Amino acid sequence: MEDRWMIETSLPVSFVIKKSVGIFDPGNPDVLSFGSSSRRLLVIDLKVSNIYLKKIIAYFDYHNVDYHVVVLNAVEREKNTEQLLYLLRQMEQFNLTRRNEPIIAIGGGVLLDIVGLAAGLYRRGVPYIRVPTTLIGLVDACVGSKTAVNFFDRRNRIGFYYPPVASYLDKTFLKTLEPVEISSGLGEILKMAVIKDSSLFSLVKEHGRSLYVNKLNGCGIADSVIDKSITGMKEELEDNLWERDLKRSVDFGHSFSPILEMRSLHDRNVLSLTHGQAVALDVIFSSVLSFHRGMLDEKDVKDVVAAANDMGLPVFHPYFGIPSLLLEALHDTVKHRNGDQNLPIPDKIGSCVFLNDVSYDEIKKASVTMKGWCKN
Amino acid sequence: MEDRWMIETSLPVSFVIKKSVGIFDPGNPDVLSFGSSSRRLLVIDLKVSNIYLKKIIAYFDYHNVDYHVVVLNAVEREKNTEQLLYLLRQMEQFNLTRRNEPIIAIGGGVLLDIVGLAAGLYRRGVPYIRVPTTLIGLVDACVGSKTAVNFFDRRNRIGFYYPPVASYLDKTFLKTLEPVEISSGLGEILKMAVIKDSSLFSLVKEHGRSLYVNKLNGCGIADSVIDKSITGMKEELEDNLWERDLKRSVDFGHSFSPILEMRSLHDRNVLSLTHGQAVALDVIFSSVLSFHRGMLDEKDVKDVVAAANDMGLPVFHPYFGIPSLLLEALHDTVKHRNGDQNLPIPDKIGSCVFLNDVSYDEIKKASVTMKGWCKN
Repeated sequence: MEDRWMIETSLPVSFVIKKSVGIFDPGNPDVLSFGSSSRRLLVIDLKVSNIYLKKIIAYFDYHNVDYHVVVLNAVEREKNTEQLLYLLRQMEQFNLTRRNEPIIAIGGGVLLDIVGLAAGLYRRGVPYIRVPTTLIGLVDACVGSKTAVNFFDRRNRIGFYYPPVASYLDKTFLKTLEPVEISSGLGEILKMAVIKDSSLFSLVKEHGRSLYVNKLNGCGIADSVIDKSITGMKEELEDNLWERDLKRSVDFGHSFSPILEMRSLHDRNVLSLTHGQAVALDVIFSSVLSFHRGMLDEKDVKDVVAAANDMGLPVFHPYFGIPSLLLEALHDTVKHRNGDQNLPIPDKIGSCVFLNDVSYDEIKKASVTMKGWCKN
Repeated sequence: MEDRWMIETSLPVSFVIKKSVGIFDPGNPDVLSFGSSSRRLLVIDLKVSNIYLKKIIAYFDYHNVDYHVVVLNAVEREKNTEQLLYLLRQMEQFNLTRRNEPIIAIGGGVLLDIVGLAAGLYRRGVPYIRVPTTLIGLVDACVGSKTAVNFFDRRNRIGFYYPPVASYLDKTFLKTLEPVEISSGLGEILKMAVIKDSSLFSLVKEHGRSLYVNKLNGCGIADSVIDKSITGMKEELEDNLWERDLKRSVDFGHSFSPILEMRSLHDRNVLSLTHGQAVALDVIFSSVLSFHRGMLDEKDVKDVVAAANDMGLPVFHPYFGIPSLLLEALHDTVKHRNGDQNLPIPDKIGSCVFLNDVSYDEIKKASVTMKGWCKN
């Protein structure tokens, strides 16, 4: 008689992130290089669709693809289970097969997260391709395997890890972004620079304004900034794609911000924060925490603040003046990090330590300092 | 400048399936052997709760565990996104941490599937433990990593692969099952016997009646039957836990049945089918297909029918007399198998071939034969 059985196996994962300028130029084969059928479900962000739908459709017409277009209003406030179920219904109605009709997801981080989750859930997973159209999409969402929607007013509370078959990067999409979308992406880049890559920080410190104004197009520096950001993400994520290790330097900027970002969306008394804005504010606050621990010096923190300011990012927000709210936000993050703070904090620019003993007094002190240094 | 990045990694998975008689006897440490906190969310099937809640609660009281009980009416008709979202809300309200408070799921296959899905989605995955209380739960649902709910009247259309940290098998739960729940589990065992294990088939052929009547308790043969079934499932699933290979012998009995099972739940003119009943009918129908291809002989098929009958399973259902419905069901399965039929069919008892060219004429012929041999 058996007494027990062990199931022991492993899931290999690999996917490519490839630059592909002119992704929907008729001669570009990339988005059709996976799958064997000539049917495709295209999921496109509403704003992207308003500008690019004609070009996208022409591409698939040119290649004689039988497509169905689903347009999602993929904004943070609508990143919810209703949109998820709507998309799943569209997938059922299109009658997707299981492996050879990869969904093509065209949009920013919110859209890529929703489509990834729906693709992962439908028939226990159908393939999908990411075509990011925002800066956050390019340097952040397209690198890892996370998928998500918000739930109970909690950011990304529902989701899992479901990698795409490929991500194709076409930075010409950035040209038509609104300034706030550029600065939001620069918020994630600032995070990476401060916590992991001092050479990247030098670039954003020196060229922040021009990167922002020129929307990261048309100069070699912009390409370096994008490359360094993606390379940094890849280095941090590849060996920890399922977050088995909850000490993640890329969680920098994501310790206090999630709750505040979500709350700001429903609070008429304050500025609604985009994701990258919330991250940048957390980066500044966490840098001040580091300063009070004797790690970053005042000049470092003020350089971070100046870079954020140059890149069109807010450097203060009323929520960061309310220590009790910051503590509440940290408590939820601690739940997410399994009971530990695991706070990634720069001990110097480009280098990370993890703190597990940040006190309410420190939060209060940092809040006062941030207010003093950053509030107009 | 970089032109592309490759993400290449792998996810190791291991979990134990362990026999643990008297799982909720106070001295049994098993369900508390993972996790470090003293809080637990217990998700219990309604029928199980009616019989065992007092004992289960006494167990956690004895161990000073701060528990919250969620009771789900985990029947096939209620295996839907509403229950999934309800359960996720309960998880949020309990304020689960991410790693050290494994959810304890106590119920049959439907309950284990829903809890697995919710656990996999909440915070991108919290741990859970399976305590199967039905025969299908013991020999089938607890072995693999599938999770699911139904959607659009399609069985398990939404779900993914999310293994538990452990499955604990206590077959004393079987004593309080209704006969139809026992026969339903025997349907899955019959599937395994016919497609993979002739020694298991010999056992169910000879002892089918007694296994059914005695609810698989109290004799060495019952233990052999359970062990062989689990070992067979493990062998088939372990190297294909994410179904990368869509030729799966354990899909035997699951080619025509999913659509018919779901439809029968809403059709007042026919008997509602349980999952195991639907599987057994498909096993018989597919065996007849094999007979017409000159593989199984008439006696083999009639042995399968007799064994099903002994084990309290239906051997005919009006849907199997409607070839157009069987074809429609096969079409959906073909979508799920990425355009191929990949029909697992016994070429002899205990051995499998895959067919990809079953015609409508063969379906019609098999339907007529099944009716002749099986209808009263």
